[in-house]
Amino acid sequence: MRAIILSIGDELTLGQTVDTNSAWLSQRLAAIGYRPIAHLTVPDDQDAIRQAIEESVGRCDVLLISGGLGPTEDDLTRQALSDFLEQPLELNETALENVTRFFKAMKRDMPERNKIQAMLPHGTEMIENTAGTAPGIYCNYQSGDTKTLCRIFIMPGVPKEMKIMFERSVAPRLSTDAGACTPGACILSKTLHTFGVGESAIAQRLGDLMRRDRNPSVGTTVSNGYVSVRINAYSDTRDRAQRELASTVQLCREALGDLIWGEDDQTLQEVVAQLLVSSRKSVATAESCTGGLLAKMLTDVPGSSAYFGYGWITYSNDAKHAQLDVGLDLLGRHGAVSEPVVSAMASEAIKLSGADCALAISGIAGPEGGSQQKPVGTVCIALAEEDNYAVIHNSARTFLFPGDREMIRDRSAKMALTLLRFHLLDKRLPF
Amino acid sequence: MRAIILSIGDELTLGQTVDTNSAWLSQRLAAIGYRPIAHLTVPDDQDAIRQAIEESVGRCDVLLISGGLGPTEDDLTRQALSDFLEQPLELNETALENVTRFFKAMKRDMPERNKIQAMLPHGTEMIENTAGTAPGIYCNYQSGDTKTLCRIFIMPGVPKEMKIMFERSVAPRLSTDAGACTPGACILSKTLHTFGVGESAIAQRLGDLMRRDRNPSVGTTVSNGYVSVRINAYSDTRDRAQRELASTVQLCREALGDLIWGEDDQTLQEVVAQLLVSSRKSVATAESCTGGLLAKMLTDVPGSSAYFGYGWITYSNDAKHAQLDVGLDLLGRHGAVSEPVVSAMASEAIKLSGADCALAISGIAGPEGGSQQKPVGTVCIALAEEDNYAVIHNSARTFLFPGDREMIRDRSAKMALTLLRFHLLDKRLPF
Repeated sequence: MRAIILSIGDELTLGQTVDTNSAWLSQRLAAIGYRPIAHLTVPDDQDAIRQAIEESVGRCDVLLISGGLGPTEDDLTRQALSDFLEQPLELNETALENVTRFFKAMKRDMPERNKIQAMLPHGTEMIENTAGTAPGIYCNYQSGDTKTLCRIFIMPGVPKEMKIMFERSVAPRLSTDAGACTPGACILSKTLHTFGVGESAIAQRLGDLMRRDRNPSVGTTVSNGYVSVRINAYSDTRDRAQRELASTVQLCREALGDLIWGEDDQTLQEVVAQLLVSSRKSVATAESCTGGLLAKMLTDVPGSSAYFGYGWITYSNDAKHAQLDVGLDLLGRHGAVSEPVVSAMASEAIKLSGADCALAISGIAGPEGGSQQKPVGTVCIALAEEDNYAVIHNSARTFLFPGDREMIRDRSAKMALTLLRFHLLDKRLPF
Repeated sequence: MRAIILSIGDELTLGQTVDTNSAWLSQRLAAIGYRPIAHLTVPDDQDAIRQAIEESVGRCDVLLISGGLGPTEDDLTRQALSDFLEQPLELNETALENVTRFFKAMKRDMPERNKIQAMLPHGTEMIENTAGTAPGIYCNYQSGDTKTLCRIFIMPGVPKEMKIMFERSVAPRLSTDAGACTPGACILSKTLHTFGVGESAIAQRLGDLMRRDRNPSVGTTVSNGYVSVRINAYSDTRDRAQRELASTVQLCREALGDLIWGEDDQTLQEVVAQLLVSSRKSVATAESCTGGLLAKMLTDVPGSSAYFGYGWITYSNDAKHAQLDVGLDLLGRHGAVSEPVVSAMASEAIKLSGADCALAISGIAGPEGGSQQKPVGTVCIALAEEDNYAVIHNSARTFLFPGDREMIRDRSAKMALTLLRFHLLDKRLPF
């Protein structure tokens, strides 16, 4: 069963509001067995709305529309539907009661203007709105040429009202149809997250799993430096979708191994925090170019005081020397962005804090400060580990990150967390 | 000039990712005189993409496409464009250099798969990507029937890469054309940003300026704790829109005074950085609950070493005592979240760093750790100022911020920057 989602509003097409309704509705539709094949957004313009309806009905089994049901002059969805159906607007008594009751409950007088919200095209059905004044509209439409039936639901644009209406009145009607999931209609998903290797390297490891005609399908997306693997299982029953999803997830896990740090809503910070807590280790930080971002990420997680107590931001060479005892000769000989310097920072951070391990970062975040030998994006990261008050393990690596200042700082902090993650897992870094 | 924005990706149509690109592009288009008439989103399906392009080109002067340019099998935008134009994909040497250069700069081998990113439909032009491996694609298309010209720009879907490409390569080409606005089509906007006072208090100060029927219109939006005032001027000529916009902006500025910290794309960090640079002052930080976020924000701005050298994250009481010499008696008597403690942290940060001023933050970010007397959200912030090696000014305040851990930490850092801003302006805090 194919669905199209149509959103209406000048604030959307002008970009003043980010449309979150479409994503929410898509997730809900997929969960009950509908496949969203397009999102479409048009302004508060009667012709544009009518045309969008006209072009959508022949292509899908369900058209979900949100927005343009308010009482003001720029709310034109009901007029556009009336145009499209070639049916006049007429007062719907039940709808009028719905609107009136809402004002009564709020102990406010109903402005005359709100009466328009009770006007529905002849032959359509009202959908009750329990959270606002705008009733929704429902109708069936039989395309003349294709003889396919499209069901049209119009809901308010206010996310809260839309969601309540969808759950109460729209989803139940859709579910009864899709219950016996038509073939390929049940969609279940899982996302696996990786960091540290590029999208094409991940794709290479996944190999045939990413074949376009495969079901469950396996695809990759990149977001904020993470390469995520999204597995979608399309099936005729929920049980089968679940089984097929699990087996493909397993194959992906085998292909990618420890590169996968988490799944779905997990964050890298949470995963590292769990590892720290379960291994009863603490960590200190010493940061230059990231300016506190690494410590901020480590403390994003509630309860972070269990593993984090001390952090230094030694942005200047002075600070590296005065606070973390980095030798001026070392700074002079190797430069602030060098493996010896970050190693020294990490060692001293352990000594001063008494933490079990320490991460240190120094790099060139740009846009200025790069050189032929150390271009913008060059970042050194050290991880030191303490044992019995003697630093026993101290390794540093140099990375070259792409992008602008924000990206370089972000990737640096995530790479430091990744080094710590592999260290806590007692695994070699696979890149 | 009409524009359509087409976004591509299964993760979008399945609702797994909220599309923020379309809103961002719409804002940028409106700012340079284009009217976005529709947003459209389709899955990673070659036919669906081709059809979406086909139906869009006849309706707009500019078609902006994002997504589907990656190196994997589910990236099909270039193939769809090739289908639509009926032009074969061919290797573009400049594009190949772009892709190769990116891997070289990162000192990584280029996987064979990435070569596909250098394949462009015959007759189209490459757009350089400076932040990733996927070059963009540009071409003109003359609709056979309507004889109208549509310009097609394809950009990567990763928001960051898309934005950089739009600013560097797409916007400059569009700006040259849109000089003359069609009647009623010119929309010019300006946004003024405030922090520290709620939306309704801002609305009260703006009063009649916010009347619905006013042009230019004045509206407020809340985002990330900032209350922003958006002024939209609709007019038939660019000149008139510009004049009307300027006069309403002036009225808003008079109503809100120093509450406004910046406009449009400015960030609070940048504004504070400019004030620090122009007053030749430096700042040090001492953070507990924000865990480095304040220092991170101060170093978001390129060139921040001019005013920032030292920061401490003293997350534990131990760290406050060992690193910033906060008396154990003081901690015992007042607790870590108290004005005496943050004042002591700020004073010591000045002493150790030699900075002109210091900000210190200690608070209860939650979800645990709150009490009847100091509920979650209680945050103390101190600002100390140095003169001739003697601390002369040290003031602390206690705030109660709403929301979850992330919001409380975010608002705390922004409030610290705001205190510093008013201090550098030599103005009293208006709240």
